[in-house]
Amino acid sequence: MNLLLLRADEISDQGEALLTDRRHQHLHQVNRVQRGDRLRAGLLNGLQGEAEVIEHRPDLTRVRVELDRASPAPLPLRLLLALPRPRMLARSLEHVAALGVKDIHLLHTARVEKSFWQSPELKPEKIHHHLLLGLEQARDTHLPQVHLETRFKPFVEDQLPALSQGSLRLVAHPGPYAACPRGLTEPVTLAIGPEGGFVDYEIDQLVAAGFTPVQLGERILRVETAVTALLARLF
Amino acid sequence: MNLLLLRADEISDQGEALLTDRRHQHLHQVNRVQRGDRLRAGLLNGLQGEAEVIEHRPDLTRVRVELDRASPAPLPLRLLLALPRPRMLARSLEHVAALGVKDIHLLHTARVEKSFWQSPELKPEKIHHHLLLGLEQARDTHLPQVHLETRFKPFVEDQLPALSQGSLRLVAHPGPYAACPRGLTEPVTLAIGPEGGFVDYEIDQLVAAGFTPVQLGERILRVETAVTALLARLF
Repeated sequence: MNLLLLRADEISDQGEALLTDRRHQHLHQVNRVQRGDRLRAGLLNGLQGEAEVIEHRPDLTRVRVELDRASPAPLPLRLLLALPRPRMLARSLEHVAALGVKDIHLLHTARVEKSFWQSPELKPEKIHHHLLLGLEQARDTHLPQVHLETRFKPFVEDQLPALSQGSLRLVAHPGPYAACPRGLTEPVTLAIGPEGGFVDYEIDQLVAAGFTPVQLGERILRVETAVTALLARLF
Repeated sequence: MNLLLLRADEISDQGEALLTDRRHQHLHQVNRVQRGDRLRAGLLNGLQGEAEVIEHRPDLTRVRVELDRASPAPLPLRLLLALPRPRMLARSLEHVAALGVKDIHLLHTARVEKSFWQSPELKPEKIHHHLLLGLEQARDTHLPQVHLETRFKPFVEDQLPALSQGSLRLVAHPGPYAACPRGLTEPVTLAIGPEGGFVDYEIDQLVAAGFTPVQLGERILRVETAVTALLARLF
């Protein structure tokens, strides 16, 4: 936990917060904080700065915060990610949140198993938890938005053109395509397929919506590796 | 399993191989192969091509292979990686093998917990297993070499200068350094620190050995994310 993330409703008018949950446990057992310790803290969706531990007991930690700094800049990226299998979803959300993506659309495609949509990992509180872990890791405070797009065709035909307007539209797909570009500064909408890739029809639909296929080389990467590799290369 | 990897001693003069282990289980339960199916196969440290299933029963799979193609080019990278905590080591080895790194030095540093070196994950058969998973994922046949460097100073002073000769020497480290370069084609030796980073003394030692510190931005990434991001950006 590189950042202690607090919600606005947890901070008193005196700038104090009382912690008894996972964050307290972490400060107690891993960081082994003591009264007087100072650590990096942030307000969810707000500024960051420092927290001073003003009380610490086995059952609670109380901190006083001073927040005066902006968080790292977000990536100028909208991510369309074919819904990964549940255990990979959790890790992918953490990676993506840590890397600074703020708008994530989890997408149904032909090669996404229908059962994945029933996974408990898709419960809002689970998604929220994994996003928080990513933000804490990267010292960011701004929570990404996650949207569930359970129908490919209506989403790509009816919503995606407006959603991706004004951005460079890319779909990562193995094949005889241009290499993924590097070091961009413009906004990008990036679509990443499931294990096994998009089917031809889906690529055609994305191309019709203005997307250009790009590739990362002949190695087949796990979804979580591919997402990180693509983002690191694009920006 | 995107590639069925076989050892030379498993392939008969007729080009046949009998599988009863993890690979058979995977072909049986996940791929659900049948007689006549063709799949991508490779010889460990050799060529790749196709395997045809010539016999399939619940307890065994027999294939005939034809190998005629080279594997993807390796990354021109030597990786010095501070030994990650055990559960992250396994994943990092898979990522790194999938990305095409062929020479990996796991390194002791001040912030590596000594207990990590006692982990069962460091047994040769465990390391081998995770490297194979990475190769199978990426459709590569060439096994990386993994070296355990348990003493930082003698390694950096006595071995590293010769080992890294003729390569661009980089150490990834947060701070006021140049941004990590992009799209290189030359050989690189890249050092990546542990959680919490290298200590100043270690950076000084690496600089004395010809290494230049470079940074990836202000976000703090998990080791496995940082490794993938650095490799994707460098090459």
